[in-house]
Amino acid sequence: MTDRTLEEKASLTSGSGTWHTTAAAGVPALTLADGPHGLRVQRRSGDALGLHDSVPATCFPPAVALGSSWNPRLAREVGAALAREAAALGVNVLLGPGVNIKRSPLCGRNFEYFSEDPHLTGVMGAAMVTGIQSLGVGASLKHFAVNNQETDRMRVSAEVDERTLREIYLPAFEHIVREARPYTVMCSYNRVNGVYASQHRWLLTEVLRAEWGFDGLVVSDWGAVNDRVAALAAGLDLEMPPTGTDEQITEAVRAGRLEEKILDQAVTRLIQLVRRTEGRARFDGWDAEAHHELAREAARQSAVLLKNDGGVLPLRPGRRVCVLGELARTPRYQGGGSSHVTPTRLENAWQALGEPPFAAGYRLDGGPGAGLREEAVALAAGSEVALVFLGLPEHAESEGFDRTTIDLPADQVSLLRAVADVCEEVVVVLSNGGVVSVAEWRDSATAILEGWLLGQAGGAAIADLLTGVCGPSGRLTETIPLRLADVPSHLHFPGSDGVVVYGEGRYVGYRHYDTLDVEVAYPFGHGLTYSRFDYSDLQAALDGVEVTVTNAGDRFAQEVVQLYLAFDGDRPRHELRGFAKVSLEPGESERVRFALTERDLARWSVRRHGWQVDPGTFTVEVGASSRDIRLRAELTTPGDGYVGTLSRMSTLGEWLAHPRGGEVLRAALKPGAAPADPALMRLALGVPLAKFATFGVGLSTEVVDALVAALAQDSGTDAAPAPDTGAVTATP
Amino acid sequence: MTDRTLEEKASLTSGSGTWHTTAAAGVPALTLADGPHGLRVQRRSGDALGLHDSVPATCFPPAVALGSSWNPRLAREVGAALAREAAALGVNVLLGPGVNIKRSPLCGRNFEYFSEDPHLTGVMGAAMVTGIQSLGVGASLKHFAVNNQETDRMRVSAEVDERTLREIYLPAFEHIVREARPYTVMCSYNRVNGVYASQHRWLLTEVLRAEWGFDGLVVSDWGAVNDRVAALAAGLDLEMPPTGTDEQITEAVRAGRLEEKILDQAVTRLIQLVRRTEGRARFDGWDAEAHHELAREAARQSAVLLKNDGGVLPLRPGRRVCVLGELARTPRYQGGGSSHVTPTRLENAWQALGEPPFAAGYRLDGGPGAGLREEAVALAAGSEVALVFLGLPEHAESEGFDRTTIDLPADQVSLLRAVADVCEEVVVVLSNGGVVSVAEWRDSATAILEGWLLGQAGGAAIADLLTGVCGPSGRLTETIPLRLADVPSHLHFPGSDGVVVYGEGRYVGYRHYDTLDVEVAYPFGHGLTYSRFDYSDLQAALDGVEVTVTNAGDRFAQEVVQLYLAFDGDRPRHELRGFAKVSLEPGESERVRFALTERDLARWSVRRHGWQVDPGTFTVEVGASSRDIRLRAELTTPGDGYVGTLSRMSTLGEWLAHPRGGEVLRAALKPGAAPADPALMRLALGVPLAKFATFGVGLSTEVVDALVAALAQDSGTDAAPAPDTGAVTATP
Repeated sequence: MTDRTLEEKASLTSGSGTWHTTAAAGVPALTLADGPHGLRVQRRSGDALGLHDSVPATCFPPAVALGSSWNPRLAREVGAALAREAAALGVNVLLGPGVNIKRSPLCGRNFEYFSEDPHLTGVMGAAMVTGIQSLGVGASLKHFAVNNQETDRMRVSAEVDERTLREIYLPAFEHIVREARPYTVMCSYNRVNGVYASQHRWLLTEVLRAEWGFDGLVVSDWGAVNDRVAALAAGLDLEMPPTGTDEQITEAVRAGRLEEKILDQAVTRLIQLVRRTEGRARFDGWDAEAHHELAREAARQSAVLLKNDGGVLPLRPGRRVCVLGELARTPRYQGGGSSHVTPTRLENAWQALGEPPFAAGYRLDGGPGAGLREEAVALAAGSEVALVFLGLPEHAESEGFDRTTIDLPADQVSLLRAVADVCEEVVVVLSNGGVVSVAEWRDSATAILEGWLLGQAGGAAIADLLTGVCGPSGRLTETIPLRLADVPSHLHFPGSDGVVVYGEGRYVGYRHYDTLDVEVAYPFGHGLTYSRFDYSDLQAALDGVEVTVTNAGDRFAQEVVQLYLAFDGDRPRHELRGFAKVSLEPGESERVRFALTERDLARWSVRRHGWQVDPGTFTVEVGASSRDIRLRAELTTPGDGYVGTLSRMSTLGEWLAHPRGGEVLRAALKPGAAPADPALMRLALGVPLAKFATFGVGLSTEVVDALVAALAQDSGTDAAPAPDTGAVTATP
Repeated sequence: MTDRTLEEKASLTSGSGTWHTTAAAGVPALTLADGPHGLRVQRRSGDALGLHDSVPATCFPPAVALGSSWNPRLAREVGAALAREAAALGVNVLLGPGVNIKRSPLCGRNFEYFSEDPHLTGVMGAAMVTGIQSLGVGASLKHFAVNNQETDRMRVSAEVDERTLREIYLPAFEHIVREARPYTVMCSYNRVNGVYASQHRWLLTEVLRAEWGFDGLVVSDWGAVNDRVAALAAGLDLEMPPTGTDEQITEAVRAGRLEEKILDQAVTRLIQLVRRTEGRARFDGWDAEAHHELAREAARQSAVLLKNDGGVLPLRPGRRVCVLGELARTPRYQGGGSSHVTPTRLENAWQALGEPPFAAGYRLDGGPGAGLREEAVALAAGSEVALVFLGLPEHAESEGFDRTTIDLPADQVSLLRAVADVCEEVVVVLSNGGVVSVAEWRDSATAILEGWLLGQAGGAAIADLLTGVCGPSGRLTETIPLRLADVPSHLHFPGSDGVVVYGEGRYVGYRHYDTLDVEVAYPFGHGLTYSRFDYSDLQAALDGVEVTVTNAGDRFAQEVVQLYLAFDGDRPRHELRGFAKVSLEPGESERVRFALTERDLARWSVRRHGWQVDPGTFTVEVGASSRDIRLRAELTTPGDGYVGTLSRMSTLGEWLAHPRGGEVLRAALKPGAAPADPALMRLALGVPLAKFATFGVGLSTEVVDALVAALAQDSGTDAAPAPDTGAVTATP
């Protein structure tokens, strides 16, 4: 480090222009580019708001769709294809994937995220990072952390309790960092419990590096730095884009307010990133056709068949079909904002279906469109099957703002109802980045195919699925509620006054609905196929679970076998701990194995500030959705052996329950000391031992102190020290 | 103060024995006694757990019942009667009322609290304090603060956000302190956001004294002090009972760790309390009969008639009636724990009804009781009306532990069903301190009278109500949900690992059910009478609301007219802001007036750390329950005139919306600078102005700085400084 000046080093911790790191003192510049599902390399110098065009690149299905494939292998392939395009376009680091949890269906950026569940998110995200980095292109795991809304995203403080952080909002990041080792992590804009993520030392250094072993570079989201010195000190290595504030760094070092070794460390990490991505494979271009086909296969596996009454799908040949809805002709296949890609090709579902009779039915801009509905209804009246394409127009959802409703546009719903009045079989195909409510209109649909945003080959994939060229195999990664008011975060989203309280805590998505037994439209994990599957021979042990799945139908199909664990106590009804997508010919069976680790059984203990496996019995559930559990087994764990140390403030109940403490205490107490009244005894069990001295019931301070001393010999430490989070409490 | 030694002063900040303050250096000892609804003066030296007998005193209805009267005048009278008994028994300070909010129906001590609503709690609590202190006996407002469960109550940290504290958990205390000026406030056992209430400087000093003007003494709950020095420094003046730790105080003062003037202040407050209660009226005894009659009147007004199909109540003379259920003979009329009173008299409902044919039906200890049910059913079969007394046995609820279910005992429910099969008219009378579920059995009941715990004269009062000697006039102070899982705190109660997260935030009770439109069994404010009331002529203005209420039935009856305000935005569906109990003869009308203040319109602003009235339109609702709104009117407030200062971190949207900022900004921007894409424009509106410089869209740092400078001239300060709460965040 001695051969670089302070100024040179400071300059290396900020970018040069919107998309490049600084070249200085022998360190070459790196190119970074948006694109969790497709490259966005801007033609001109670039801006961070996507005002300028980008060069064509394959638009793969965004995470909302790809996640629904429940197919990590597919995600890895997509990641590798993205890396190939990145390399061909001179990009060193791809800014993705996004792995924030879908806390509310209203979040405008949900289309860039995988799921309401951290396990599924972690597995899919890890696969994507592995794919991207398989060619030496760096991934940037984002947005770290607790960035679950767009409203006021650059300032809002996400107020979230420790256990919720550990069990819901951090595990996907943790899994991906540990398993896939991303070259970079991108911090989010928001504050977490009062401290900007960009200067949150506990997050960026203590948890990310010290606990999880992250050894890469932390880059800011574009514009997320508010205090260069505080950010660098907290563990943020690279500010993007530059704010011309390098002097703040040099001044702070010279004034002794910032240790130079922290600056050196950031530079070292940048150089390491240069080295890591220098070795990336070289490509002059890529096979656009092959990538389009991969996008098509990904889209096929991503659509979710929600409903299929009477087996209307796949469409039998020769039926009189019409296509209704502007979205069939003007597809929505990606979301708005920084992830917006200029696709290499684009075909719509209507073309892919061979251009059957078509009527637009409605206008995407919500305008009146005189006669459009009547024309569509007339067409439907003469058809055996109406394929009705509904969904959210582009202006309804985007990075940068949140929705305030999950309803489909009213004109689309009334079109559907009018069509259902005149046509027996109505197949709805949905295009939407965030969940839309289906409860108020699903009775008008014979079948519903939730297509999400399927990327540039989505039209072809939808046609493939409708006609049975292939079968649907997507599953819901988020619950579709009956109504917005049922969403657990509803009353807390998106907060106000710069604060959003994560009041629902760990009860996000199915953890809420299933625990409280709230009726939903379609549960987490749900998705139909053109076949059916039997589950048998569940064998469960603490280190793994096995089950046999059989295709009991008459078509090749893919099943997503889901493993949930259900614990008693202050925990959700059950939690996803494993899944496997299996492909089976009719009559074929497969033995599916899930490994279990101690962590799978653990909950976060706030007292211990660590993971804890409580002794006891829990239930292993295997099924086809969170509400379609086919087989159950009980297991008993001895726990992780952790026994807290007793103190003067441990309750009478804790003393009596403690293996040594109970012994010592019982020996010290007079026989008959326990009150006869059961209510009084229950009251007494909750009282810390030290308090009995003051309650005048004859257990003196001296006796309590002697008890504690007697135990001190054979006990370990009670708990890790409280984390030094750097957080300022926002609540008195 | 100079004439007292340090040791003497330290000794005055702790008690002498369980129920007395220390007499030292010319300061006489004071006597304190439990008894929010009746004196508990122990015969022997005393203990804090209620192991020893207490001398007889009138057992008035506990707060769960008295609150249901919605009658502050009655509460004042009961308070005065309590003070008379206190004075007669030599008690200077009565340890009540308890005004914690009923966050969950499971809280074991709910019977000592008034309501799920802070306004109702504040008004009833203030009346009680006024009554107690009218005779110079001190009240002790408890438990300050956020003590809403018994589980782990001596250690648990209630994690609650600032706005929820201010809008739900503190307002009742605030109202009572401001309006009724209690001589003492009792701190609670629990921690609030990590800090023990007994040493929470923000609560005990900044909020209680500096903001609300409390000038009395803060006493610990019995055994709540964990650190004498920290407690004294935080504003706790008196430790009860003593822990023999006075030396910690003297040592801290001598070592300079505690300012002596803080000790002096505590002593001064104790002396002031002595002076205040010295002047109390002297009584040798009290008129036990008159107090019993007051207890009876209070009980009559406290029972709530939930259901009365076909007007089965009041019982018509001459009907063949039987009384079923052990609780008719062995009444539950108070709760367990420190508030347990030895009554001066006790009669049960069966006796008060003239001892009609009776069968126990079940055993209160849940034992099998062979033949009891059959006997009861046989008796019912020969009766026209069965009065079935159901409820919670003593061991099911108490101070010191929380319930885990709201179900009635299963044997009682099955008795009811069996009775309903053989008897046409079944009147259920409930005795319970915490809410019990009625949804699964209410179809078996023709009428339901919710008697709560009605005190020593409850039996007579129930007979009066059933027979029509008087009519029911109680109203629900807490919602009866359809099921426990619907309770907003359900997933967060009672927490674990020493932490309870108040995840439901401000949405407690009807604020949750009504905002989310969740079906309930009986809504907040509900209660039938033997008459009916018309509402007319609503006149609403910003300073007050008037409405005419008419008794449209044919019996004298009492109506509780309820005023709710409904605001848009991040607020509950509506909130109680006034109520009035009116007594009307048939055909009689009364014009009811509610004053409104600016505070009634305000919400807590976290940004401002203060109350704020936002400009806009809101709805005035007047009705007979939170779900029986009879009249509505709209009002518009100009707001309180607060306009935040703009800064570099204010968003484009905030700049444009600001009266001066919009002007200045529009002048600085080039025409046509706004993006045409509406989604992009919405994204841009949420971006802080300072960030545009780094986004490469041509709004330079210099321009932003110039804008801020241009505004600096005509703006005030943005917000109060963040509160120095002394709180340690428990969440990273």
